[in-house]
Amino acid sequence: MRIIVDAMGGDNSIQATALGSVEAVEELDLEVTLIGKKDLIEKELNKNNYTGNKIEIIHAEDIILNEDSPTLSIRRKKNSSMVIGFNKLKEGYGDAFISTGNTGALLAGGLFIIKRIEGIDRAAISSVYPTRDGMTLLLDMGANVDCKPEYLQQFAIMGSIYSEKVLGVKSPSVGLVNVGTEKEKGNILIKEAYELLANSNINFYGNIEARDVPEGIVDVMVCDGFVGNVILKLTEGLANLFFSTLKEEFKKSFSSKIGALMLKPQLKSFKERFDYREYGGAPLLGVRKPIIKAHGSSDGLAIKNAIKQAKIFTEGKVIDRIEEDVKKI
Amino acid sequence: MRIIVDAMGGDNSIQATALGSVEAVEELDLEVTLIGKKDLIEKELNKNNYTGNKIEIIHAEDIILNEDSPTLSIRRKKNSSMVIGFNKLKEGYGDAFISTGNTGALLAGGLFIIKRIEGIDRAAISSVYPTRDGMTLLLDMGANVDCKPEYLQQFAIMGSIYSEKVLGVKSPSVGLVNVGTEKEKGNILIKEAYELLANSNINFYGNIEARDVPEGIVDVMVCDGFVGNVILKLTEGLANLFFSTLKEEFKKSFSSKIGALMLKPQLKSFKERFDYREYGGAPLLGVRKPIIKAHGSSDGLAIKNAIKQAKIFTEGKVIDRIEEDVKKI
Repeated sequence: MRIIVDAMGGDNSIQATALGSVEAVEELDLEVTLIGKKDLIEKELNKNNYTGNKIEIIHAEDIILNEDSPTLSIRRKKNSSMVIGFNKLKEGYGDAFISTGNTGALLAGGLFIIKRIEGIDRAAISSVYPTRDGMTLLLDMGANVDCKPEYLQQFAIMGSIYSEKVLGVKSPSVGLVNVGTEKEKGNILIKEAYELLANSNINFYGNIEARDVPEGIVDVMVCDGFVGNVILKLTEGLANLFFSTLKEEFKKSFSSKIGALMLKPQLKSFKERFDYREYGGAPLLGVRKPIIKAHGSSDGLAIKNAIKQAKIFTEGKVIDRIEEDVKKI
Repeated sequence: MRIIVDAMGGDNSIQATALGSVEAVEELDLEVTLIGKKDLIEKELNKNNYTGNKIEIIHAEDIILNEDSPTLSIRRKKNSSMVIGFNKLKEGYGDAFISTGNTGALLAGGLFIIKRIEGIDRAAISSVYPTRDGMTLLLDMGANVDCKPEYLQQFAIMGSIYSEKVLGVKSPSVGLVNVGTEKEKGNILIKEAYELLANSNINFYGNIEARDVPEGIVDVMVCDGFVGNVILKLTEGLANLFFSTLKEEFKKSFSSKIGALMLKPQLKSFKERFDYREYGGAPLLGVRKPIIKAHGSSDGLAIKNAIKQAKIFTEGKVIDRIEEDVKKI
């Protein structure tokens, strides 16, 4: 098994991907291809004292930046680490591809270079969302802001398969994000999607309200990309507000500072429950090869977990199962 | 000025509306009409030692329950406290109407009994959303799950006027909730609404991402009712998760318990920043009279604040201004 990793995504991408790859090849039975500026990657591997032969580097002169136009950069930046990575993935040189870079470009590359699975109308980006007691899969998180009911049905099927094969959930329950739990609630899109999901070969839970999203009452949450984006970003914004306000309050007096000091291990453990790094990256579902978007500010641990996730994604034959299941619709 | 209050909404509605009314008439220059079971309301007023003549009771035999169908109950439950309240409001017996009851029925009553303002296609329920340093107005919070761009334009105008006249914001900035800040981002609805808002007589800020919703970077946030409902309920769900997880962590050891004890005032002040009771109720905008939906679990303070809000809503001539401004579109 060989995982292809774009080493040139976020700010600390070279450090993070080098460290994560070293840890991954030591821990897991696989090889890694790092793509990017060769000298810089070599330097990072040396820093980590890596002397093995399970990591190779393919040099890429160019980088797709976060501010680049997704479609244009995939078409024109032929020597970028991301496009080279996609082409290597396409020709079967590696089994899966991970990048911390431009999300739109990753989606565009998945669609234009790797191509959609037959029977799938739209590819979705899914996110593993931390909940009270674990995690739940949320899709679509922003790739498709205008959806038809059939897209949501396909998201539900893909999410269900991914949850079972990669996250290890047996017969995952699938919920439809809605404004109320009753069957007749919702906008036109969601009402029609409800009927399709209820008649699909999945463990359909029914509607869930946004209030229950953090409670993890289902294993897979389906919504259009506009709503998914609102859910993810609002969660991020509220967590920021919450932690910074708490910090501010704790600085207010001498005794509160002492109190906060006594609570340090608990506050740390609390924060870790909402730590994205433990949960790997966001799989792009609906394309013909395993592709994972890792967080732009991933560190070594996050990259190692994304590589592990890519391995299970590949071994679980998720894409074959999606192909089979969409044929049955 | 007379505020009509439905005394029969939530579980503690009679206690809360009686207490809130007593405090309101003592503090503010107005009279209150409480509608509901006369003997029960009288008992509550006596409990609060109220002997003045600024609160009157109109008896209502029936109640619209939360599980009742909104439209049917407004049509058929003629002797319910809510329908009697609406009719009193319509005939000009009072200036504004407040209820803690069934939100759908309140919307239906507003539309069928009080009627829409000419030029307004849809009435919106708006909510005052607590942010890092204050509050912001969010609309629509769920009345309209399928929207056209023109509805969002009308929401923007109504929200802007309400923010200025009732919340006291000078030239309130209006943001459109979107998946990105750039002009060309969004789904079809939001892209078209952007053009309309940019050409409206409001202080249009542009798009805001959900990440910035809790930061309060604008005074008014506009979205369709589906997205608004997701924002409100997810905020509620995450706040629940945060507070209960924090509590759990703090119980883990002896020293963390002591630490939490030392932080008690800070934790309290922290929680209060997210306390809906301070912010009054949710105004129904787009109908011909001031109507406010108070939270189902309102206490006396929340009701007093809602009455105060109804007074400013009326005095600010919000509805006249909405009528004038929509004529100009």
